[in-house]
Amino acid sequence: MDRKPTNVQKITTRKTHPSPAFARRMHTTPKSFIREILKVTENPEIISFAGGLPNPGLIDVEGLAQAAAEVFASDGRTALQYSTTEGYIPLRRFIADRYKKRLGLEISPDEILITNGSQQCLDLIGKVLIDPGDKILIERPGYLGAIQVFSLYEPVFIPVNLDADGPDVAAFESAVSGYDPKLFYCIPNSQNPSGITYSAACRKTCAGILKNTSTIIVEDDAYGELQFQGKSLPPLKKYLPDQTILTGSFSKIMAPGMRLGWVCAPREIMDQLVIAKQASDLHSNYLSQRIASCYLEESDLDAHVGRIRATYREQANTMIDAMQDALSEDVSWSQPKGGMFVWVTLPVGCPAMDVFTEALKKQVAVLPGIPFYVDGGGTDTLRLNFSNATPARITEGIERLGKVLQSFNQ
Amino acid sequence: MDRKPTNVQKITTRKTHPSPAFARRMHTTPKSFIREILKVTENPEIISFAGGLPNPGLIDVEGLAQAAAEVFASDGRTALQYSTTEGYIPLRRFIADRYKKRLGLEISPDEILITNGSQQCLDLIGKVLIDPGDKILIERPGYLGAIQVFSLYEPVFIPVNLDADGPDVAAFESAVSGYDPKLFYCIPNSQNPSGITYSAACRKTCAGILKNTSTIIVEDDAYGELQFQGKSLPPLKKYLPDQTILTGSFSKIMAPGMRLGWVCAPREIMDQLVIAKQASDLHSNYLSQRIASCYLEESDLDAHVGRIRATYREQANTMIDAMQDALSEDVSWSQPKGGMFVWVTLPVGCPAMDVFTEALKKQVAVLPGIPFYVDGGGTDTLRLNFSNATPARITEGIERLGKVLQSFNQ
Repeated sequence: MDRKPTNVQKITTRKTHPSPAFARRMHTTPKSFIREILKVTENPEIISFAGGLPNPGLIDVEGLAQAAAEVFASDGRTALQYSTTEGYIPLRRFIADRYKKRLGLEISPDEILITNGSQQCLDLIGKVLIDPGDKILIERPGYLGAIQVFSLYEPVFIPVNLDADGPDVAAFESAVSGYDPKLFYCIPNSQNPSGITYSAACRKTCAGILKNTSTIIVEDDAYGELQFQGKSLPPLKKYLPDQTILTGSFSKIMAPGMRLGWVCAPREIMDQLVIAKQASDLHSNYLSQRIASCYLEESDLDAHVGRIRATYREQANTMIDAMQDALSEDVSWSQPKGGMFVWVTLPVGCPAMDVFTEALKKQVAVLPGIPFYVDGGGTDTLRLNFSNATPARITEGIERLGKVLQSFNQ
Repeated sequence: MDRKPTNVQKITTRKTHPSPAFARRMHTTPKSFIREILKVTENPEIISFAGGLPNPGLIDVEGLAQAAAEVFASDGRTALQYSTTEGYIPLRRFIADRYKKRLGLEISPDEILITNGSQQCLDLIGKVLIDPGDKILIERPGYLGAIQVFSLYEPVFIPVNLDADGPDVAAFESAVSGYDPKLFYCIPNSQNPSGITYSAACRKTCAGILKNTSTIIVEDDAYGELQFQGKSLPPLKKYLPDQTILTGSFSKIMAPGMRLGWVCAPREIMDQLVIAKQASDLHSNYLSQRIASCYLEESDLDAHVGRIRATYREQANTMIDAMQDALSEDVSWSQPKGGMFVWVTLPVGCPAMDVFTEALKKQVAVLPGIPFYVDGGGTDTLRLNFSNATPARITEGIERLGKVLQSFNQ
């Protein structure tokens, strides 16, 4: 093992300090650094690469308005009443059908539960599966939202380094055999924050290592539809269907404000997720489920997602091109094939927190990578979001960032 | 003490039995008996008093449709984007203003967090405050949804019997001093399931007993606006503002399908609730928050709530009148001053589960009170909902129930 298991408890930069009257879990749950930063960057004069917002120009406001009007007119009284915990059946059927069509996955609508965005999937999974001290294998760097919510259930995180095509296989194999983890949490498509996509070979290898273990895979696929380079690769769910919980989201392909995601799980796990969901909030917003279902039936989601991909490809290329022009050779970055982020590694002598502070003075916001590391580290990394700025502002923002980095070399 | 602390773990009728791979908390969390029963009673020929649905005829579908159209037209792109964890400020301001107007409570919008229905408030409170083994004082009978969600945090429940005007004061005082509970969970207005409303004197007495203790009051006020007899009484929050978390809901006064509730808490607790909310699902449905806020600004909520009260008064009176006609003298029931439920105590020889089974054969659904008891008991009780049936069907249903009960005496 190249790395010891790490409890978030030890990471003082992200700790909060509630009074002793609060539950123990709150003493180990980090507050979102991102949301704190976003408050700083709300000023429209700041070019922000710090957040993770989808491009608002790509939300089909008219189509959704039309769907809403139809739902109110045709069945408003039902859409406004209480409903089932599992979610609206036609919407679950749409999701199952799309899995079949896109990825060849055979999923029954019964194996799908509608959630308040895919973030809630992770809370429900934590409730159902994580006891204090359970080991969670997580990518390094790992998705901050997962670190936050899983921390509520007091696990021990086992970080595994990411290479350009997925987890470091030797470290992954050794962690699986050495720790017998309860969960492996991963984002194989356009990982947040690193932007990398697991190769086909790496997926197969990871699945092979996990086969015949008791580890449950939590495969977060928030970005699978946003791949703008290369063909879709099989999810881990395809290799290990009975061992994999797959989560998805309409936030990036329809509208985040409707807070609609889903979890797709084997039946025995699904039974428990439904109990946890019912206890947590009875059911997800039914009006939004009905509007979404109506919208998806009447619109062409493939065409819409095609537009999103084309736009994000352009935004990503603009950012990469600008970085090649404006940043010195000792700065390196990931080459995203999809999603919304580029991951930057800074040269020696450019601490990410100082870069953040100086960049803000030049009206550009970047996100230091530190909170994505459960074991410290990442002090030389930045996550840059390209989906929420115009190409012109992307170029301008990267030029400003280049000047900031130059000032550290002087 | 008349009663020992009780962990739900011991109540075998409500236990689920997941495999050992699931987290310990799932072994002690009851599945909702109500939702299971509702599946049985979906047949429209059955007159159902078993659920807890508000009267769908009182949902202002047109007003909400109009508000939705306005939000889409005026600011749809923002309403469909990600938003803040705390919730939409004008909606939080509306809630704060209404507390001031209705109850004379001085609440800042900063002390209000928008949730997915008020059920989610209880999940967030559990996350933030309950460690395994913490004592929770709860009404006996107590709200099943609270028992379910708090069970996820593995507390020990201390039930305190309810009298006609609130908790049995001697038992309450003895439980507070004997157990030093972490929380007191209560529904002073139109309690679910008993239908009782705490008297003014009882509220004052309870607050006096809790003053200068470390017990935090969780005051669930889902039904406060639905009081149809007598004047509004001060919430416990008024007596002990810094010690009370107050929860509220738009489900009963606007529309449950929009899943909008709120928690109102002292700032130190609110800071932790916001962290828990953010980890749980980032934020509540923003589109629905915007629609609700637009609707509340443009409609007359007082007039609307007045119509709900008048209708529920009529429905409650119809049920009580029918019971006086159709049920024998050895059946007793609560006299609701608001809310949606009548609580029935059956005579010896009429077990509630058997009454449920026989009543269903006669196409009338009732809810046995058993799952509302954390320590067993309630085998001779029923909860009857009057808000979701027409007066004619209420009368017919109670007549059928009367015949069922007679059959037990023969």
